[in-house]
Amino acid sequence: VAEGWRIGVDWGTTRFRAYLIAPSGSIAAKKETDQGILAVSAGGFPAVLQSAVAEWRAAHPDAAVIAAGMVGSRQGWREVPYLSCPAGLADIAGALVGIEADGLGMVRLVPGLTAKDADGIPDVMRGEETQIVGAMAGLGPGSHVVVLPGTHSKWAVLEDERIVSFATYMTGELFSLLRSHSILGRLMRDTRDDEAAFRRGLDTAARPARNLLHHLFGVRTLGLFDEMPPPSLESYLSGLLIGTEIAAAIGAVGSDPPRSVLVIGGDALSTRYVQALAAHGIPAERLGEEVAALGLARIASRAGA
Amino acid sequence: VAEGWRIGVDWGTTRFRAYLIAPSGSIAAKKETDQGILAVSAGGFPAVLQSAVAEWRAAHPDAAVIAAGMVGSRQGWREVPYLSCPAGLADIAGALVGIEADGLGMVRLVPGLTAKDADGIPDVMRGEETQIVGAMAGLGPGSHVVVLPGTHSKWAVLEDERIVSFATYMTGELFSLLRSHSILGRLMRDTRDDEAAFRRGLDTAARPARNLLHHLFGVRTLGLFDEMPPPSLESYLSGLLIGTEIAAAIGAVGSDPPRSVLVIGGDALSTRYVQALAAHGIPAERLGEEVAALGLARIASRAGA
Repeated sequence: VAEGWRIGVDWGTTRFRAYLIAPSGSIAAKKETDQGILAVSAGGFPAVLQSAVAEWRAAHPDAAVIAAGMVGSRQGWREVPYLSCPAGLADIAGALVGIEADGLGMVRLVPGLTAKDADGIPDVMRGEETQIVGAMAGLGPGSHVVVLPGTHSKWAVLEDERIVSFATYMTGELFSLLRSHSILGRLMRDTRDDEAAFRRGLDTAARPARNLLHHLFGVRTLGLFDEMPPPSLESYLSGLLIGTEIAAAIGAVGSDPPRSVLVIGGDALSTRYVQALAAHGIPAERLGEEVAALGLARIASRAGA
Repeated sequence: VAEGWRIGVDWGTTRFRAYLIAPSGSIAAKKETDQGILAVSAGGFPAVLQSAVAEWRAAHPDAAVIAAGMVGSRQGWREVPYLSCPAGLADIAGALVGIEADGLGMVRLVPGLTAKDADGIPDVMRGEETQIVGAMAGLGPGSHVVVLPGTHSKWAVLEDERIVSFATYMTGELFSLLRSHSILGRLMRDTRDDEAAFRRGLDTAARPARNLLHHLFGVRTLGLFDEMPPPSLESYLSGLLIGTEIAAAIGAVGSDPPRSVLVIGGDALSTRYVQALAAHGIPAERLGEEVAALGLARIASRAGA
């Protein structure tokens, strides 16, 4: 395994996160901006990256530069073909796409992954595979289930350090849509975090009788009949959506629910997922999104960079 | 039963529909505008109604005036309390709220209905109960299931001419949100009706393994991998949503799926529901939304107006 300083970038749709990574794999410095790929014009990627990491490059001129996420999509710097599951560290490291960039040398882009679900419909991830590769270092061999909550939540199944399958749930995007544009959002005022309302949403989602399309209307009627105060409706909606995702995901992961789940994500959202998993009797561990840095270092190292 | 000419109004959120109804119950004349309650300022209801029906009033000065729908909501002309299910024609006719309006005489507002679902969460309808009362005339006693597709689809269970329970599904609103504001809508171009794509959506929705939050993401990936052309993605999304609603609704209606279903609604949407029900082996009859006129006449007649 190659040792050395590295500059790793987790470059998503709306966020740019760069890490200066020491030979040990630890994060020596980091930088986060809102220059996600949507904020960068075509051809503007090298300049944005160069300006963000210039100081680190000056201190470590030989540092390898590696980037994962939507930067490798059709709308990003250059499209990197998806790699099919099952895929592990060696597969991903073997499929990096290098670009020579002025003042940066070789920039390596990490491929996203694709998998087909039971219905034959393709699924995709870009960026999450790198966080998972970082997490694998601590998980070791055997079977593991990892969830990365967010706009498009990803549930991945690992077998002996390879991602064998995964599925996306549009939970976060639906929450934002309903919050911002639906009849439900208009009822929500002076919103505050209400754990009891969140748990009631989880409970409702766990009932098999009806489904989300019906339960959503309950957000309105609970407000209409003063059975839940307007500030709590958002927490209830969050519980409904996360509960629906989890009920489907733990049923789909295998014939038995997973014995435990690793949650990778920011504090607030991860806490809700841990609560929701606990409601199904499933213990959860947590890692922050910065585990992407370790994933980037492991991939670069495996590629000899 | 009182005979006479009547003016019936189906006054919803975005549409105003008025009917001049002959003593036989048939529609002698009708009028539809976009002056739904959202387009009427507080205090403006009598003037809008009077101007819409002035000609009919001149020809039939003794015609009773009756109105159903969101006009009886908190945001409407006057709030009419919800009536609890089970409720039939006599219950609804006994709970009309009369308002004296200049130049119109007594205007009777029809109450909406409320019911609690199995989770104890309230549900509501305003306007659909009147369409159902109209449909009851042809259905007769016994058990029936009626669906009224739309922004907020309603599934009602009838027993011996009473509405014993019902449930709302936010299918139409979710379709609009996803079409207009989500990452999925951005992929849809040159949209055309594609029955095969619609049926594929129904098939996917009928699979138990995962659920809507996951299946929605497939709209994106089928487009991304050129497995479905952009013009067909909207039909696929429609199939997914309607299929999800129907799978949940027919499971929730009773221990067995209904033997048949009556669909009340506009042509295009009703056709899709009939197709989706057929995919579950359930035959369907259809009625247009104008059955509201018969419902309004029956309710007025029962109230002696």
